[in-house]
Amino acid sequence: MTIKAVVFDAYGTLYDIQSVAAVTEEVFPGYGEIITQIWRIKQLEYTWLRSLMRRYEDFSVVTRDSLAYTLRCLGLKYDVGAFERIMEKYLYLDLYPDATASLSAMKPRKLAILSNGSPDMLNALVKNSGLDQVLDATISVDAKKVFKPSPDAYTLIESTLGIPPGEILFISSNPWDACGAKAFGLNVAWIERVTPEAMALACAKSDVVAPLTMFKAIRTQMDELGLEPDYRIHALSELPDLVALRS
Amino acid sequence: MTIKAVVFDAYGTLYDIQSVAAVTEEVFPGYGEIITQIWRIKQLEYTWLRSLMRRYEDFSVVTRDSLAYTLRCLGLKYDVGAFERIMEKYLYLDLYPDATASLSAMKPRKLAILSNGSPDMLNALVKNSGLDQVLDATISVDAKKVFKPSPDAYTLIESTLGIPPGEILFISSNPWDACGAKAFGLNVAWIERVTPEAMALACAKSDVVAPLTMFKAIRTQMDELGLEPDYRIHALSELPDLVALRS
Repeated sequence: MTIKAVVFDAYGTLYDIQSVAAVTEEVFPGYGEIITQIWRIKQLEYTWLRSLMRRYEDFSVVTRDSLAYTLRCLGLKYDVGAFERIMEKYLYLDLYPDATASLSAMKPRKLAILSNGSPDMLNALVKNSGLDQVLDATISVDAKKVFKPSPDAYTLIESTLGIPPGEILFISSNPWDACGAKAFGLNVAWIERVTPEAMALACAKSDVVAPLTMFKAIRTQMDELGLEPDYRIHALSELPDLVALRS
Repeated sequence: MTIKAVVFDAYGTLYDIQSVAAVTEEVFPGYGEIITQIWRIKQLEYTWLRSLMRRYEDFSVVTRDSLAYTLRCLGLKYDVGAFERIMEKYLYLDLYPDATASLSAMKPRKLAILSNGSPDMLNALVKNSGLDQVLDATISVDAKKVFKPSPDAYTLIESTLGIPPGEILFISSNPWDACGAKAFGLNVAWIERVTPEAMALACAKSDVVAPLTMFKAIRTQMDELGLEPDYRIHALSELPDLVALRS
């Protein structure tokens, strides 16, 4: 297999979604962590539910709706300013520290993002983080009006880059996304950012857990969906060597 | 609108899924609560993900896979006996205490279940709980090889009972299911079992939360999916009066 293009998931893979906690905690002291986790859990649920119900709305709508759910669930009163301040952070998420260097090291291969994000959100995020300098394409599922892991979403890679699935390496830290990409027929490297040992330790005999621990327990370990990624890595920085071996 | 049939979701609506905690705690002392919550969260996620990926497997497979995920995530070693003992509880879930009387009071209207459960699981559960004495039909989404909230799943009500959606009242405590049924065109009563006030109180400024609290925070409050059930009730016992008014 020759890898002609490397395609990345955005949220949680290149960009640290936990970085919204800095803003949620500022706006709602004492609630920063639980807002961040419920918000992200519901955001993904809504993408799956809307796709299944055939009631697609773009990711900016889903992200707003899931934040509204979270604040209502927690009984937090807010004004438009507070809400918008939190939402704004989604356009300025932190890159993982090794993202830019890792991507740059894989040039001149084609590099792209395939994300659930709406075109507006993604273009702003990519520009604000400087990744527009290294990416050849930023692909939004919005063109298909369905979210990952629907196979329709993954077809956009070939139709945009002109490279077939067998010559693409897809990178995601989201287990469900890695499985969806694998089911579709892409080569997949899954980033295991939370080791099984750390996970088990954090949950040991827990009557109570931090919201982040519960988030990790449901969204960071490889899923049991009858699929296995081709590669397991632990950081983006492992990618240049992996890709160099398959050129 | 005249209600000719009342159709129920099973898991979480007629049957208390929290009742598995009695067994999970016995088999894995200190872990009963966190197993129960992660298991249920992942079980539903897998129904949505498999439906979207077009990799349907029936609910007994999904239920086993999500339990396997949970025990692996928690680093718990187990043998076949322990695993099967927990799984067995799914065939003997507790009915909510008002279920049997509430259903009986709505006869001679047609009464049915529409559930994600596989036919084997549902038939055993309904028989073991005695609901086979009052139900006219137990409908599994398995006939369509897709899970709720896909509209295809809800079509099975009319094709089984011969009654159109406008004359059906569908009951679910699962917000996503109530929304899915509403999007499809059924009349929907949602059972709000956790009040917003109780929810907000449980999460107030929480650095740590009980796993059950986190479960409730993501799965018991009405979702922001742009849909609203026709009725909000708080217990199954409110149904006979509601239905009597629409006969």
